[in-house]
Amino acid sequence: MNRKLRMGMVGGGQDAFIGAIHRLAANMDGLIELSSGALSINPEIAIASGKALFLPESRTYLTYEEMIKAEAALPSSERIDFVTIVTPNFAHFAPAMMALDYGFNVVIEKPITFSLEEAKILKQKLDETGLTLCLTHTYSGYPMVKQAKAMVREGKLGKIRKVLVEYPQGWLSTLSEREGNAGAAWRTDPKKSGKSAVMGDIGTHAAQLAEYITGAKITDVCAELSTLVVGRVMDDDGAVLLKFDNGSKGVLMASQVCAGEENALKIRVYGEKGGIEWFQHEPNTLIVKWLNEPTQILRAGSNYGHLSSFATYNCRTPGGHPEGYLEAFANIYRNFALTLSCKLDGVEPTPEMLDFPSVEDGLRGMAFIDSVVASAQSDKKWTPYLL
Amino acid sequence: MNRKLRMGMVGGGQDAFIGAIHRLAANMDGLIELSSGALSINPEIAIASGKALFLPESRTYLTYEEMIKAEAALPSSERIDFVTIVTPNFAHFAPAMMALDYGFNVVIEKPITFSLEEAKILKQKLDETGLTLCLTHTYSGYPMVKQAKAMVREGKLGKIRKVLVEYPQGWLSTLSEREGNAGAAWRTDPKKSGKSAVMGDIGTHAAQLAEYITGAKITDVCAELSTLVVGRVMDDDGAVLLKFDNGSKGVLMASQVCAGEENALKIRVYGEKGGIEWFQHEPNTLIVKWLNEPTQILRAGSNYGHLSSFATYNCRTPGGHPEGYLEAFANIYRNFALTLSCKLDGVEPTPEMLDFPSVEDGLRGMAFIDSVVASAQSDKKWTPYLL
Amino acid sequence: MNRKLRMGMVGGGQDAFIGAIHRLAANMDGLIELSSGALSINPEIAIASGKALFLPESRTYLTYEEMIKAEAALPSSERIDFVTIVTPNFAHFAPAMMALDYGFNVVIEKPITFSLEEAKILKQKLDETGLTLCLTHTYSGYPMVKQAKAMVREGKLGKIRKVLVEYPQGWLSTLSEREGNAGAAWRTDPKKSGKSAVMGDIGTHAAQLAEYITGAKITDVCAELSTLVVGRVMDDDGAVLLKFDNGSKGVLMASQVCAGEENALKIRVYGEKGGIEWFQHEPNTLIVKWLNEPTQILRAGSNYGHLSSFATYNCRTPGGHPEGYLEAFANIYRNFALTLSCKLDGVEPTPEMLDFPSVEDGLRGMAFIDSVVASAQSDKKWTPYLL
Amino acid sequence: MNRKLRMGMVGGGQDAFIGAIHRLAANMDGLIELSSGALSINPEIAIASGKALFLPESRTYLTYEEMIKAEAALPSSERIDFVTIVTPNFAHFAPAMMALDYGFNVVIEKPITFSLEEAKILKQKLDETGLTLCLTHTYSGYPMVKQAKAMVREGKLGKIRKVLVEYPQGWLSTLSEREGNAGAAWRTDPKKSGKSAVMGDIGTHAAQLAEYITGAKITDVCAELSTLVVGRVMDDDGAVLLKFDNGSKGVLMASQVCAGEENALKIRVYGEKGGIEWFQHEPNTLIVKWLNEPTQILRAGSNYGHLSSFATYNCRTPGGHPEGYLEAFANIYRNFALTLSCKLDGVEPTPEMLDFPSVEDGLRGMAFIDSVVASAQSDKKWTPYLL
Repeated sequence: MNRKLRMGMVGGGQDAFIGAIHRLAANMDGLIELSSGALSINPEIAIASGKALFLPESRTYLTYEEMIKAEAALPSSERIDFVTIVTPNFAHFAPAMMALDYGFNVVIEKPITFSLEEAKILKQKLDETGLTLCLTHTYSGYPMVKQAKAMVREGKLGKIRKVLVEYPQGWLSTLSEREGNAGAAWRTDPKKSGKSAVMGDIGTHAAQLAEYITGAKITDVCAELSTLVVGRVMDDDGAVLLKFDNGSKGVLMASQVCAGEENALKIRVYGEKGGIEWFQHEPNTLIVKWLNEPTQILRAGSNYGHLSSFATYNCRTPGGHPEGYLEAFANIYRNFALTLSCKLDGVEPTPEMLDFPSVEDGLRGMAFIDSVVASAQSDKKWTPYLL
Repeated sequence: MNRKLRMGMVGGGQDAFIGAIHRLAANMDGLIELSSGALSINPEIAIASGKALFLPESRTYLTYEEMIKAEAALPSSERIDFVTIVTPNFAHFAPAMMALDYGFNVVIEKPITFSLEEAKILKQKLDETGLTLCLTHTYSGYPMVKQAKAMVREGKLGKIRKVLVEYPQGWLSTLSEREGNAGAAWRTDPKKSGKSAVMGDIGTHAAQLAEYITGAKITDVCAELSTLVVGRVMDDDGAVLLKFDNGSKGVLMASQVCAGEENALKIRVYGEKGGIEWFQHEPNTLIVKWLNEPTQILRAGSNYGHLSSFATYNCRTPGGHPEGYLEAFANIYRNFALTLSCKLDGVEPTPEMLDFPSVEDGLRGMAFIDSVVASAQSDKKWTPYLL
Repeated sequence: MNRKLRMGMVGGGQDAFIGAIHRLAANMDGLIELSSGALSINPEIAIASGKALFLPESRTYLTYEEMIKAEAALPSSERIDFVTIVTPNFAHFAPAMMALDYGFNVVIEKPITFSLEEAKILKQKLDETGLTLCLTHTYSGYPMVKQAKAMVREGKLGKIRKVLVEYPQGWLSTLSEREGNAGAAWRTDPKKSGKSAVMGDIGTHAAQLAEYITGAKITDVCAELSTLVVGRVMDDDGAVLLKFDNGSKGVLMASQVCAGEENALKIRVYGEKGGIEWFQHEPNTLIVKWLNEPTQILRAGSNYGHLSSFATYNCRTPGGHPEGYLEAFANIYRNFALTLSCKLDGVEPTPEMLDFPSVEDGLRGMAFIDSVVASAQSDKKWTPYLL
Repeated sequence: MNRKLRMGMVGGGQDAFIGAIHRLAANMDGLIELSSGALSINPEIAIASGKALFLPESRTYLTYEEMIKAEAALPSSERIDFVTIVTPNFAHFAPAMMALDYGFNVVIEKPITFSLEEAKILKQKLDETGLTLCLTHTYSGYPMVKQAKAMVREGKLGKIRKVLVEYPQGWLSTLSEREGNAGAAWRTDPKKSGKSAVMGDIGTHAAQLAEYITGAKITDVCAELSTLVVGRVMDDDGAVLLKFDNGSKGVLMASQVCAGEENALKIRVYGEKGGIEWFQHEPNTLIVKWLNEPTQILRAGSNYGHLSSFATYNCRTPGGHPEGYLEAFANIYRNFALTLSCKLDGVEPTPEMLDFPSVEDGLRGMAFIDSVVASAQSDKKWTPYLL
């Protein structure tokens, strides 16, 4: 890699939560520079945001269409290398398609699109263009999640039997969508959010994490979706029994009305020989429970040989210097950037570089939402996974 | 109370786990003395156990029938006050019925009987005799569980929306029933255990805890039961989606093949205003999460006015002097003993004394097992609770 | 052991905290019965307490002198086997000496006496009589403390380098001794408490724990004692730098004015190869940190071969069924009772039975107090341990 | 702020730990760009490192002298705004002095200099030039540390009585300085490290944290320094009793031979009304213990009004999205950068911007080392703080 990659951002103007997160993550390792942006559909916000981010006026655009066209017209030594899309769910597909059409690689905030159909079209476009898409399923960027995956893959836990994944949040415990909370408003609006609010926003993270770590695929779901806050027009809570293609069973719980919870994503995976437990609030720790041995505490950044290369590759600091959510996010950007650089340089990326969520994860995320919604509407116990 | 109550024990000979636990719990507060026993169906063990427990030979019996008849013939100043039954599940009903017929109160290890039908007959017998039955659902004996119940009852959490209860154990991760583990053997034998092994052994604890704390009743279940260890003849893992009569939703997970887990019963209950979390491994702590306030850590034995009378009544030590499983068990025995003494003295017990699991809990436990098994065998998503 | 041992109690009437704890601990295992008592210097309380504890009137005494004489006159088949002394510190010595003179073994609440001089006389009396004294340094009764000791002894941690022991409490953060708190009143009264309040009450526990686990002896102290609550007449806070006879260094902190702390005794011991950490609030866990291996979590009651016989001998329940303070206390009573029974039966007790605190611990406790007070009054950095 | 600030780095070439950390921290918020560097005294490493960091060849220097002179000669629109010094301790002073002489602001890794004398000269130079120095005492950059400081300042804990600060690490448990560990080698070399290895490397962090949170100043120390690894030529372990100018007492423990510990900096501060506890391994949590109220868990990023403006100003993510060591480090860079921008723009920085460690902290750090070393060499118990 002999230069920074150039990023153009769609969405993410001032006061948008996730856009700022993407920039922090992209900045961190010094491999990416923000070069242009269509940061808001509100022109004033777009311009003010560009200024605050030190973008030149000439590359502060008012629409993504304008940005993509203008950037495509720049010489390759200036033009952006990829477009990052951080708009609400319903506004992912169009800019992503256009970016690909103009030859730009793409980073998209999850869920990948508004519907499974859109995701399939996007997948086809990627296959046609050979471009790269990165989906920011942040949680699979944590080193100890990668360590868990490596331990399963290497058979350390034996055959996997049981998966428990839960994602309780509390921030939608009141009708905040009617009290001026913009993030709550679009997430609970069926026209902007998708078929399921809770599964689109957080359930897909949980499902992706379970499949990422175990390497197994969900084959059947038995789901209940609920609206537990009176007056809300979409679901805010759900639970899903799961069957996986390796014969293991699972339970997935996602709720945004668990009052008092922050962002308490936790996963436990049990095999014949032991189990792992990982909790996002304390992400540098992987608890490994053994059948007839004391539990072990594996720690990110430790250097005594117990961590897989996929874990250590994604640590920046030694043990006891906690890395967090932004570093997990940055790992996804960094691995994407390194992979893209290799492609640009005609070099083969390492397996560690290639370890970031892709369109396949996006497709499965949308299929998961569809499957859960179909099951929730069915009287039958089990609904086959729809893909 | 002007004398110790006298206990006769059925089962619980040397090397039986739960019998020893019952004795420790009954001893602790100095309110109960072990006065007689039919401690094993093996006469040698019965006699050796009686000797080791300092029972007089005359009151060391070889069968429960012999014990009940002989004790009934003793003068009231010597005769036992109650019979404690700590045999495997299939051998609860007969001694309990006979004890009641002979006028003895009864303590039974859970689940109350082998089948729902037996439980109903036992309930009828109790109604006829006016005697008292205590069911040792240990976990509802913990002070911080009682605190959680009090907080829900007093509306501190607002209307309850969501219940998550889980009970992962790992001790049946191998086919230990074929390797000489007697406890594993009868628990996984359908002739001795009941309709479901995992639900009978631990699922009923989880269900009782959920209903105890919330005061709500399960109305519908959607269950999956699995045998995850190859070769086992009963289930060893299960998950159940729940509906409650107050409109809240729940998830119950019970498994005995979560390799590396000990006895990790945990419950979380969320209402409009906040939630509680209680974990049996650290039972003196109740985590209270508030919607827009910092989380609080309530601690058993604290004396600054934040604990309900039901919690403090069941604490023996000040904060920071941890009480555990045996004390929770002893609370059940103590409250039963105090209630029984009041009855003997013609006095009304206090609500705190009456706070121990009864035949109603036993009945619901058996109905829960039946409901879960019916649901697990059904293609329909929801099965109404069978009672 | 073919009968229960008979205990006579001095002090511990109604509303006395530690007397009730001693009875709970003595009851638990069914090896000891409370047979007589001189439970209060207030005759009304003494009589009411005896009645509440189901003592016969004939063995409810008004003074310890009366009790000891009367019991000594009973036939050996009825007479108490030992005297338990649970009075305030200044009132330990006289009843202990008299009990020994009349041939009774003795259990004493710590600190053993009011002064080092008394402790030395008591030691001499024990040597002369050949009787047994048990000192209830509760914290060395915990199984995972015994595990820590075993690991040090077996060299698992390598040569010991550093000991950190701390005992923060908060219950004396206000002048509660002037607000009717009887326990605070005598503990902060130099006539009843001894030379140092904080070191007598909790510092000796910390020092005993450090020496118990490491097997090393303190040789020099550098101490600071403070009175941090204005108006108090004794110290309520202290810190001590330590040197041990094995060349290791230590820090001991004991304070009763750490507002908000309960009974937060914690010890950490580090050797060449690793360290252990034990925290009394979660006593069933021993954290073992290794130099170049993941940290391990050792758990009381686990049965897969990682615990020493001294730990497992003192566990009553399997892993995940938490035992607490009362069980640690009961371990001391049980081991004392088993040792005493062996002596009565002319049998050699096992090393596990003999593992309870003795007069030697009491002597060192008093010497520790004296040493710390001398150091606190000195301008020299180091004061040699006075024994 | 209308442009990024330009940074020139001294030290921090490839494989240097702390240089990479500084760059990650400086990058994160997009306010600073690395514009030049004298990254190593080894020319090959300097050049390779510059290339890897995408520095232009023209601004990749071989010595700091060269860099400072060349940058000073650039037009102000290109020239660096500040110099960051990340060399070993002995090589801080000279480049810092030269940078100031040439009009550059300075960021220095702690401890500020090799000796107290150097620190005093540096302070004088700063006073003369009016330039700004930022010292990267990382731990005071954590939002919950700032929250603790705010709570003390606002009197929430009442008058402060007791401070416990500890910093156990284990990475020097073997003689790694002789096994090729470069970081260990210079830190244990008296010519490069300073008067005390353990106090210079980590003890100053602990002391700075204690003074930062409490707002009190250490007035007297009673110290013990030890070399616990045989063969080492400097100390690797220490403990210090402290007196503060507000009458409170403290204990500071710093050790690099606590085998199995990572970077376990913890501080507890107790006042009349309660205490706080903060642990660097889980930095987003501040435990607040109250005298007669349940303990509260304050969490970084929470938005319900319990955090001071100094805490929230230094959070980038909402509660439950953990920030870590790099974000704490980045807070120091960000606040420094914002302050510097205000100065450049002639605007007054806010108190939140000004909240980064300065030369005063550096001076006190050096005085702390001198005081501890003097005390450790003295037979007197207390040594007055030397400043």
